Amino acid sequence: MKQLTIAKIGGNIIDSPELLDIFLDDFRAIEGAKILVHGGGKIATRTAKEMGIEATMIDGRRVTDLAMLRVVTMVYGGLVNKNIVAALQRKGVNAIGLTGADGAIITSRKRSPEPIDYGYVGDPIAVSTKTAISLIEAGLVPILAPLTYADGEILNTNADTIAQTMATALSVEYNIVLQYKFEKSGVLLDLEDENSLIEHITPELFKELSSSGKVHSGMLPKIANALDAAASGVGAIFIGKTKITL
Amino acid sequence: MKQLTIAKIGGNIIDSPELLDIFLDDFRAIEGAKILVHGGGKIATRTAKEMGIEATMIDGRRVTDLAMLRVVTMVYGGLVNKNIVAALQRKGVNAIGLTGADGAIITSRKRSPEPIDYGYVGDPIAVSTKTAISLIEAGLVPILAPLTYADGEILNTNADTIAQTMATALSVEYNIVLQYKFEKSGVLLDLEDENSLIEHITPELFKELSSSGKVHSGMLPKIANALDAAASGVGAIFIGKTKITL
Repeated sequence: MKQLTIAKIGGNIIDSPELLDIFLDDFRAIEGAKILVHGGGKIATRTAKEMGIEATMIDGRRVTDLAMLRVVTMVYGGLVNKNIVAALQRKGVNAIGLTGADGAIITSRKRSPEPIDYGYVGDPIAVSTKTAISLIEAGLVPILAPLTYADGEILNTNADTIAQTMATALSVEYNIVLQYKFEKSGVLLDLEDENSLIEHITPELFKELSSSGKVHSGMLPKIANALDAAASGVGAIFIGKTKITL
Repeated sequence: MKQLTIAKIGGNIIDSPELLDIFLDDFRAIEGAKILVHGGGKIATRTAKEMGIEATMIDGRRVTDLAMLRVVTMVYGGLVNKNIVAALQRKGVNAIGLTGADGAIITSRKRSPEPIDYGYVGDPIAVSTKTAISLIEAGLVPILAPLTYADGEILNTNADTIAQTMATALSVEYNIVLQYKFEKSGVLLDLEDENSLIEHITPELFKELSSSGKVHSGMLPKIANALDAAASGVGAIFIGKTKITL
C-alpha cells in the first residue's frame, strides 16, 4: 500500500505566524500523499469578541450557539483554512481547503444536548474515502478545517477527532502515518521541561500516567484518541516525537 | 465534447434565503457537469460593520484594504461558500467549495494601484484546468467564491469575471453553457417591467443599448463580460433568459 501522512496542527501553532511557517515548511518536506488537519486557535474567540459575541465555555470546551457557529464557519472554514492554503501554494504544495461538507468528506452526528448542550457540535460518523482518494490521486493535498457536515448543516468538530477519523477510515487504502503536531516536542512528564519527553506510550503506560495524574489533562483525550487510532489499525502514530503504539 | 454548465449567482440572490433556495433547486436540476460561481452580497459589508470596519467604495466598487480582505476571506470563502455547499449537499449535489487558491484553480494578478488603488483585488490570469477537470471527473461540483490567488495571497475578485474566465478556459475541454443568474428575468429595457425582457443581445445591439443609455449601468460590464466570453469561444451564454451571441 502507498503511504499517506495525516498531520494535525493545534491552535497554538495557528495563533503564531512564526510557528505556523516553520510547521508548513516541515509539512511541505513530507514526501508522498498527505493531509493536513488544523484546529482553530484563539482567533475565533477574538473575532467573536470583535463582533460583540461572547464565547461560552463548559469544562474547557466551546459552546457553539448559532452566532458562534457563524463565527467558526467564517474563521475556521474561511480565514484560517484559506490562509494556510495560500501559504502552502506559495511553498509549492497544491493544497485544497475543505470542511467536512465539501465533497461530504466528513459527515457527523450532532451531539446530544444531554447531559451538556454544546450546541452545533458534531461527532464524526463517516468519511467519504471516495472524495479523499479522488483528491489525493489528483495530486491535491487536502487541508481540513475543524468543521463537519450533518443534514444540511455545518457543525463544529474537534480537530484531533477529525485527524483520527480520517486516519482510521483511510487505513484501509493507505499505510497511515498520523502526526499530532503542537508547540511542545511531544508528551512531557514535566510541561516546563522539554527534556522530560516520554518516547513511547502504550495503553499500559497511558493507564499509569493518567491514574497517577502525571500527564496534563488536555493531553489525556489526545493520547486516548491516538490509542483509538492504533486500535483501529493506524500503523504509525506520533504526538510530537512521542510514539504511540498498542 | 461533454457539456459543462457554469452558473453564476449575484449578491441579491445570496442575500435572500428564499431566492437562494429556489436558485439552488434550479441548479440541482441541471444535468451533467456543472460549476457554481457566487458573488458576495451585502453580508461582507454587514459583517465588517459588526466588526467596526467601514467599507470604502469608489465608483460602486469595494476597496479591499487588509481589514476588508480578512472579512471577505471569512465571509465569501467561509460563511457564504460553506453554507451553499451544505445546502447543496442536503439537496444531493456533491458540492465542493473553493477559492482560487484551492488547487490553484484561479490565479490572478493584483490590480495596479494606478489610477485607482482598489487594494487587495485581483484580475484572473490563469485557470488550472487540471484541477477543474480532476474535480469534475470525480463527480464533484465546484462552488467558487469570488476570491482568487496571487503569490501567496488571497485577492478579492469580481464573480462575473471569474465565471467568464472559467468558461473561456474550460471551453477547450467542454461545450460550455454560461448562465448569469440574478433576481430579474434577464436584461430589461425597463427595470420596473419584467415584460420588457430583451431576448437576444449581439455586439451591435449592445453598442446601441449602451450608447442610447437604455441599459442600466450595472448591467453594462455584465453584458461586456458575456460578449468577451462569446468572442473566446463559449458556445451558449445567458444573462437570466437573455441570450448573448456574437
